[in-house]
Amino acid sequence: MNKSIIRYILGYVLKIEGALLLLPCLTAAIYRESQGIYYVLTAALCIAIGTAMSLRKPKSNVFYLKEGCVATALSWIFLSLFGCLPFYLSGEIPSFTDALFETISGFTTTGSSILSDVEALSHCALFWRSFTHWIGGMGVLVFLLAIVPLSGGSNINLMRAESPGPSVGKLVPKMRYTARLLYAIYIGMTIIEIILLLIGQMPLFDSLCTAFGTAGTGGFGIKNDSMASYSTYLQWVVTIFMALFGVNFNAYYLLLFRQFKKAFSMEEVRYYFLIIVAFVAVIAFNIRHMCSSVFDAITQAAFQVSSIITTTGFASTDFDQWPQASKTMLVLLMFIGACAGSTGGGIKVSRLVILCKTVFKELSSYIHPKIIRKVKVDGKPVEHEVVRATNVYFITFMIVFSFSVLAISFENKDLVTNFAAVAATINNVGPGLELVGPTQNFMHFSAFSKYVLMFDMLAGRLEMFPLLILLHPTVWKDMIFQRKPKNLDR
Amino acid sequence: MNKSIIRYILGYVLKIEGALLLLPCLTAAIYRESQGIYYVLTAALCIAIGTAMSLRKPKSNVFYLKEGCVATALSWIFLSLFGCLPFYLSGEIPSFTDALFETISGFTTTGSSILSDVEALSHCALFWRSFTHWIGGMGVLVFLLAIVPLSGGSNINLMRAESPGPSVGKLVPKMRYTARLLYAIYIGMTIIEIILLLIGQMPLFDSLCTAFGTAGTGGFGIKNDSMASYSTYLQWVVTIFMALFGVNFNAYYLLLFRQFKKAFSMEEVRYYFLIIVAFVAVIAFNIRHMCSSVFDAITQAAFQVSSIITTTGFASTDFDQWPQASKTMLVLLMFIGACAGSTGGGIKVSRLVILCKTVFKELSSYIHPKIIRKVKVDGKPVEHEVVRATNVYFITFMIVFSFSVLAISFENKDLVTNFAAVAATINNVGPGLELVGPTQNFMHFSAFSKYVLMFDMLAGRLEMFPLLILLHPTVWKDMIFQRKPKNLDR
Repeated sequence: MNKSIIRYILGYVLKIEGALLLLPCLTAAIYRESQGIYYVLTAALCIAIGTAMSLRKPKSNVFYLKEGCVATALSWIFLSLFGCLPFYLSGEIPSFTDALFETISGFTTTGSSILSDVEALSHCALFWRSFTHWIGGMGVLVFLLAIVPLSGGSNINLMRAESPGPSVGKLVPKMRYTARLLYAIYIGMTIIEIILLLIGQMPLFDSLCTAFGTAGTGGFGIKNDSMASYSTYLQWVVTIFMALFGVNFNAYYLLLFRQFKKAFSMEEVRYYFLIIVAFVAVIAFNIRHMCSSVFDAITQAAFQVSSIITTTGFASTDFDQWPQASKTMLVLLMFIGACAGSTGGGIKVSRLVILCKTVFKELSSYIHPKIIRKVKVDGKPVEHEVVRATNVYFITFMIVFSFSVLAISFENKDLVTNFAAVAATINNVGPGLELVGPTQNFMHFSAFSKYVLMFDMLAGRLEMFPLLILLHPTVWKDMIFQRKPKNLDR
Repeated sequence: MNKSIIRYILGYVLKIEGALLLLPCLTAAIYRESQGIYYVLTAALCIAIGTAMSLRKPKSNVFYLKEGCVATALSWIFLSLFGCLPFYLSGEIPSFTDALFETISGFTTTGSSILSDVEALSHCALFWRSFTHWIGGMGVLVFLLAIVPLSGGSNINLMRAESPGPSVGKLVPKMRYTARLLYAIYIGMTIIEIILLLIGQMPLFDSLCTAFGTAGTGGFGIKNDSMASYSTYLQWVVTIFMALFGVNFNAYYLLLFRQFKKAFSMEEVRYYFLIIVAFVAVIAFNIRHMCSSVFDAITQAAFQVSSIITTTGFASTDFDQWPQASKTMLVLLMFIGACAGSTGGGIKVSRLVILCKTVFKELSSYIHPKIIRKVKVDGKPVEHEVVRATNVYFITFMIVFSFSVLAISFENKDLVTNFAAVAATINNVGPGLELVGPTQNFMHFSAFSKYVLMFDMLAGRLEMFPLLILLHPTVWKDMIFQRKPKNLDR
C-alpha cells in the first residue's frame, strides 16, 4: 500500500480542518465567548500536524481503490478525533466519548445528540456543531479534490470512496471540476436558504446553523425542541430545502446547463418525489385527528417525511406520539434514504429502484425463462457490476445492522429503542423512536454502545466498505509493516 | 400455460388430502367424538372433487417452472381451503378466517395459533392440527412425486417450487426415488421420536402430536403452556429432534449410505450446529439469574434456541420475559432459520453462508482487485446462478417483510408486536414477542392483518416466488383466457 500518499492526504485534510475551525473562532470573537480559545488551539494543532504530515511530497503516485478507501476512512476518523477536541477541552461536553460521538454524528450528518440541553452551549460550540454537518454533507475529500491538484488514480478513487450511491457520476470529464461544480451548487443553495430564512425573520445565527444542518442533511438543532417553535413559513422553507438537498446533484448540474428535459426525466428523482408525496398523503391522513386543520396535518407530515427520507432528522413535532402506521412509515423512510449523489444517507432511492427491478426481473424470468431481460434505469440497461454491487451493499448493510442491534441489546433496553437507535445512526438520520425519539437523546447509552453507534454512523456515511476495509487484517499488516508492492496486490 | 396438468395435479393433491383426513376420522372414532363426522364429510368432498379433477389425463405433458410454481402455490391454497373445513363446520373455530389461518399455519409448519384455549379442542381436531404440520413439513407435492408417476419436466419443477433452499439436491438420479427416500427418512425419524417420547411416559396421543409438530418443525402444542409442563427428559428429546429435523436431509442420505466423512464435512450443517452451540452458550449465560441451576439455564436456552432456529416454535418457557439480548438473539435466529433441504423455514443457513461469503469476497476485491475469487461452499465454487438467486431471494424477502409490517401497522399495535408477528409468520416460526409472545396468540388481529400474515406464511414456506408469481398479471391472463402457447412463453 502507498502509505506516503495516504499520509499526504491526511495532512491536507487536517490543514483544511484547521482552516475551517477559524469560523467558530470568529463566532466566539463576535459573541465574546471564552471557549473560543479552545477552537484557536485546536486549529493551530490541526495546522501544525497537518503541515508536518504534508511537508514531504509522496514518493509515488500509485493510488488504487484500496488507498482511496483507507485514506477516506482515516480522514473521517482524524477529522472527528481533532474536531471533538474543542467540545472536550472547553468542558462543554465533559466526556471524551460523548464529545467524539457528537462530532462523528456531526460530520456524518447524522444529528444524533448526547446533549439534553442544547441551548446551554456557547454560540461557537453550536456553530461548530452545525458546521460539521455542512462539511460532512458534501464530503471533505470532495473539497480536497476541488482545491488541491492530485494526480494519478487518486481523484476517482477518493471520489468513489466518499460519494454516496451505487455509481459515481462524473459531471464533467475532469474530476477536479466536478468537485468544484458540486461545491458551487452546494454553496449557492445554502446561501439561498439562508436568505429565505432571514426573510422569515429568523435571526442570522439561527439561519446559518439551520441552513448548515439542512444542506448537509444533518439535523443538529440549536433549540431543545428542534424546529417546533419556528413559524409555519420557516418550517416550510426548511421542509422544501431538506427535500431539495436530498435530490441527486446531477439533476442540478443538468438544470444549470439548461438540460431541463434530461433533468426532469431522471428516474431516481421522480421516484424520490413520488415517495415523498405518497408518504405525506398517507401520514397526513393518519395523523389528522391530532392536528388542528388539514393544512396543519400536511405541514407536519411534510416536515417529518422530508426530514426523515433525506435523513436530516430535524423534528417539528414529537412523532414518537404518532399512530403506529405513521411511525412505521417513518422507519421505512429511514432505510429508503435520499437520492444517490445527494448529501443524504440511507440505502438510497436509486439502489432501491435497482433492487425492486431485480425482483420484478426475477419474477418475469419464472414466467418467460427464455427472454433475457436487463434491469433498466433511465431507459438504459444497468451494468451487471452495478446490480451486483447494489445487491452486495444491501446484504452488507443488513448484516452490519443486525450485529449492531445485537451488540447494543446487552444493556437491556427495549427492542424498539435498539432497533431505532441503529436505524437512526447507520442511516445517518438522527432521532429514532422510544428512548431515542425526537424529544430524547443518546446520552443514556453505555460507552460500548456509543462506540458501536459511532461505527454505524461512519459505516453509513462511507457506505460500508471504505470503513469495513480498515478491519481487514491485510490492511493492518500493510499499514504496520512495509511490504514490497507486489503486482498481485493491485 | 398448461392448465390441464395443473388441474390434474390439484386433483391428485385433493385425493391425497382426502385420504389423510381419514386419520383424524379414526381418532374421532377411538375417542367417540361427534366432530368426526365433519372430517368424514370433508374427506368425502376432497376425494369426490379430486377424482373429478384428475379423471381426464392432461392433454399435454409440457411442464415448465411456471407450471411448477403455479401448481405448487395453488396446491397449498387448495389444501388449506379444504383442510380448514372440519374446524369451521364443527364450530370448534367459529370464524372461517380463523379456521383458515390455523390451517395455513399448520400446513406451512408455522404454528402461530388464533386459539387461546387449545385444550378445549376435541382429540380429532388436535390430531388434524398437528398432522397438518407433518404433511406440510416434507411437502405434499414431494409426497405426490413419491407415489404418482408423472412425466416430463414436472418432477424437477414441482420439487424446485416446493423444496426449501438455494439449490435442489437430487439425492439419486430419479426424482421419484429421491422423493421416496426423503419420506422414508422422515417417517423413520418421526417413529424414533415417538418411541423415545413414549419411553419418557408421554401418553401415545401426546407423543404422536408432539412428534408431528417436531418433525414438520411446526410447533402447534396440544397444551396451553406448549411444552413447559413436560419433564426435562421429554424436553431434551424434543430439543434434540427439533435440531435434527432442521438438518439438511442430504446429510441423512449420506449417513444412510455410509458416506460419513462427506456427511460430517457439509459446511452448512457444521455452521448450523456452530450457531446453535454459540447461541445456547450466550443465552444460557444471559438468563442464568432467572434459572435454578446452570443445567436448567442450558436446558431452557437449548430448547428455545433449537425451537426457534428450526422455526418449530414450541416453547418451554415464556421467553418474552427474558433479557433483551436473549430476545434479540431469538429474533435473529428466526431469520437465520434451519438448513436448506430440511423441514424448517427462515432464510436458511446455506443462504446466509453464501451471503456472508459474498460480502467477504467483496471486501477482498477492494484490496486485491485483480484476483478473481469465487464463493466456495463445501470446497466447491458456487455457481454464479445460485449466488444471484440467493441475493435476489434475500432482497425479495426483505421487501415482502417490510410491506407486511407496514400493512399490519394500521391497526395501531406496537412496533415489536408487528415486527415479531411478521417475523414469526414469514419465517414459519409461530410465536413472536409482546402481544404475539409464546403465552399469547394471533386472535386479536383484524381479518385484514390475518390475511396479510397468511400470505406471509405461504410466501415463507414456498420461498417467495411460487406464491408471488400468482400475483403476476400474465399468470392471471393465462389462467382465465385460453392462449395459444407461444414458443416465447416457455
